[in-house]
Amino acid sequence: MSSNVAVSSRIRLARNLSGYPFPNRLSDSGKAEVVEKVKEAVESLSTKLMFVELSDLSQNSLVAMVERHLISPEFAGSTKGRALAVSEDESISIMINEEDHLRIQVIKPGLALKEAYEIADRIDTELSAKLQIAFDKNLGYLTQCPTNLGTAMRASVMMHLGALTESKSVGRIAANLQKLGFVIRGSYGEGSDAPSSMYQLSNQVTLGLSEQTAIDNIENIVEKLMETEQSTLESLMNSMEYQDKISRSMGILLTARLISFSEAVKLLSNVRMGISQGIIDNTTVETVDKLIVMIQPASLMQAEGKDLTPAERDKVRAEVIKKTLR
Amino acid sequence: MSSNVAVSSRIRLARNLSGYPFPNRLSDSGKAEVVEKVKEAVESLSTKLMFVELSDLSQNSLVAMVERHLISPEFAGSTKGRALAVSEDESISIMINEEDHLRIQVIKPGLALKEAYEIADRIDTELSAKLQIAFDKNLGYLTQCPTNLGTAMRASVMMHLGALTESKSVGRIAANLQKLGFVIRGSYGEGSDAPSSMYQLSNQVTLGLSEQTAIDNIENIVEKLMETEQSTLESLMNSMEYQDKISRSMGILLTARLISFSEAVKLLSNVRMGISQGIIDNTTVETVDKLIVMIQPASLMQAEGKDLTPAERDKVRAEVIKKTLR
Repeated sequence: MSSNVAVSSRIRLARNLSGYPFPNRLSDSGKAEVVEKVKEAVESLSTKLMFVELSDLSQNSLVAMVERHLISPEFAGSTKGRALAVSEDESISIMINEEDHLRIQVIKPGLALKEAYEIADRIDTELSAKLQIAFDKNLGYLTQCPTNLGTAMRASVMMHLGALTESKSVGRIAANLQKLGFVIRGSYGEGSDAPSSMYQLSNQVTLGLSEQTAIDNIENIVEKLMETEQSTLESLMNSMEYQDKISRSMGILLTARLISFSEAVKLLSNVRMGISQGIIDNTTVETVDKLIVMIQPASLMQAEGKDLTPAERDKVRAEVIKKTLR
Repeated sequence: MSSNVAVSSRIRLARNLSGYPFPNRLSDSGKAEVVEKVKEAVESLSTKLMFVELSDLSQNSLVAMVERHLISPEFAGSTKGRALAVSEDESISIMINEEDHLRIQVIKPGLALKEAYEIADRIDTELSAKLQIAFDKNLGYLTQCPTNLGTAMRASVMMHLGALTESKSVGRIAANLQKLGFVIRGSYGEGSDAPSSMYQLSNQVTLGLSEQTAIDNIENIVEKLMETEQSTLESLMNSMEYQDKISRSMGILLTARLISFSEAVKLLSNVRMGISQGIIDNTTVETVDKLIVMIQPASLMQAEGKDLTPAERDKVRAEVIKKTLR
């Protein structure tokens, strides 16, 4: 039941090569050298990764990768001198020449930071055997941004906090977590309209803490949040008005002929809560999570194989939702 | 297709017995005599009608009869000295000691004023053979309210003008019809919130026009309104936004767990339009019309066999709608 709250876990390690300036100070030829060296090292990995120059990808497929959380929006923003290595299932990816020379990322479904870290650590160890990684005895891994110094590890858990959003508790929770060195931020539709109830919780502190301790700390927080979300959800669901809202959300998703991304995410969030409380039984949390990714603009267009106007996307989105939920 | 617009046709004849004051001036014993005389005449009719004293009925079953348009709200308001004769299918009813001694009413589905009038006229003829009806060579049938003098016939057609309501044209149409001697008024939820799109069109003039002419005039108006509604509906349905709204209405009706009467009527009105335009194909106009009657408060309570709070009614209403539409 509580595993519904944790959608996915992500480990990201920042690494830089010795002897080269950070990417923002690096010449075009310097970037090309870094790409070349990393490519060679990636080809020697025990796990097979595809290697692509970013300039070989269409803008739409780059944005779709951002929507799938495979790359950062900043990385997609400029393709020059950048490359990406990615495993077939997209659980492992390496951004080359983003803010740092290497950003190794591993994503796993559910609450699985330890598993994700083990994989990231193995990739890091194998790459370090081939590449000279910038490391300082006192500062740890050297990174462009000083907030990443130390382990240079960012651990994040994507969580669906539908009930806590509904009870308007997330702001207070976020303020408390910040004091403890964690940051929680909305994942989709961050603006004021239609909060998505999807949040990413990450560690802030990378200096003076081992990777293991950082992961243990964040897992403890996630487990506490899961419990609070669960008990808030149960009390919400005691109200007929709320059950009505949840049930109607499914009805609207199954019959809409036009739907915006923000409305769809809000309704899918309701359905997600309904599934975990047995109010909705004709779909699964996995289907809902898959849909939330699929119905984003670039992902929709990539699946359709063509550009679509916003109005066309609202129509195609409604069709995709109907087909997937039925 | 256009028959969807006309929901039902109703003829109502007002009659009074000679030698008795109108009911509002009639003593209790006088009322009892009128009831007795009418009862005898009703028992001799070629069509079998049940005869009940109003005081023998529960308040809830009286209100449910108002909801089914079988009796007037005024008639249900006081039971003393009043009686009702009604056919098994409820298409024929006679209110005794409402505003006049007799109010003969015949309701038929669709646009069928002539058929309804033929039945009402036959009942009137048979009753007149047994009762002495007040009639004046110049004024026609004598009635308590002078606006009914002459034929004392009110012909009405219940119409669903969903598209004209949506395009906010009904007010203008009503103003024009009033100049021609017709009145059109909303049937459910007459207030400002959630207009139901159901309207009753009636003749106003009873003096100086034969029944036949009055009926011909009103049928002409109804046919014009049907055409205007139909063409307005077709142009509305060209918009994807409207198709979306119609389709979602069905989704909400099928999944709501709580629903008010006014919201349900609005959504059912949308579904009714969707059926006639082929957007909704898993229910019928007849089912929708039946539902609009069934989900009214007193009718719901009568079907459940017990009193319900408004919140309980919203729950039962949602269940009845789901069961009936599936």
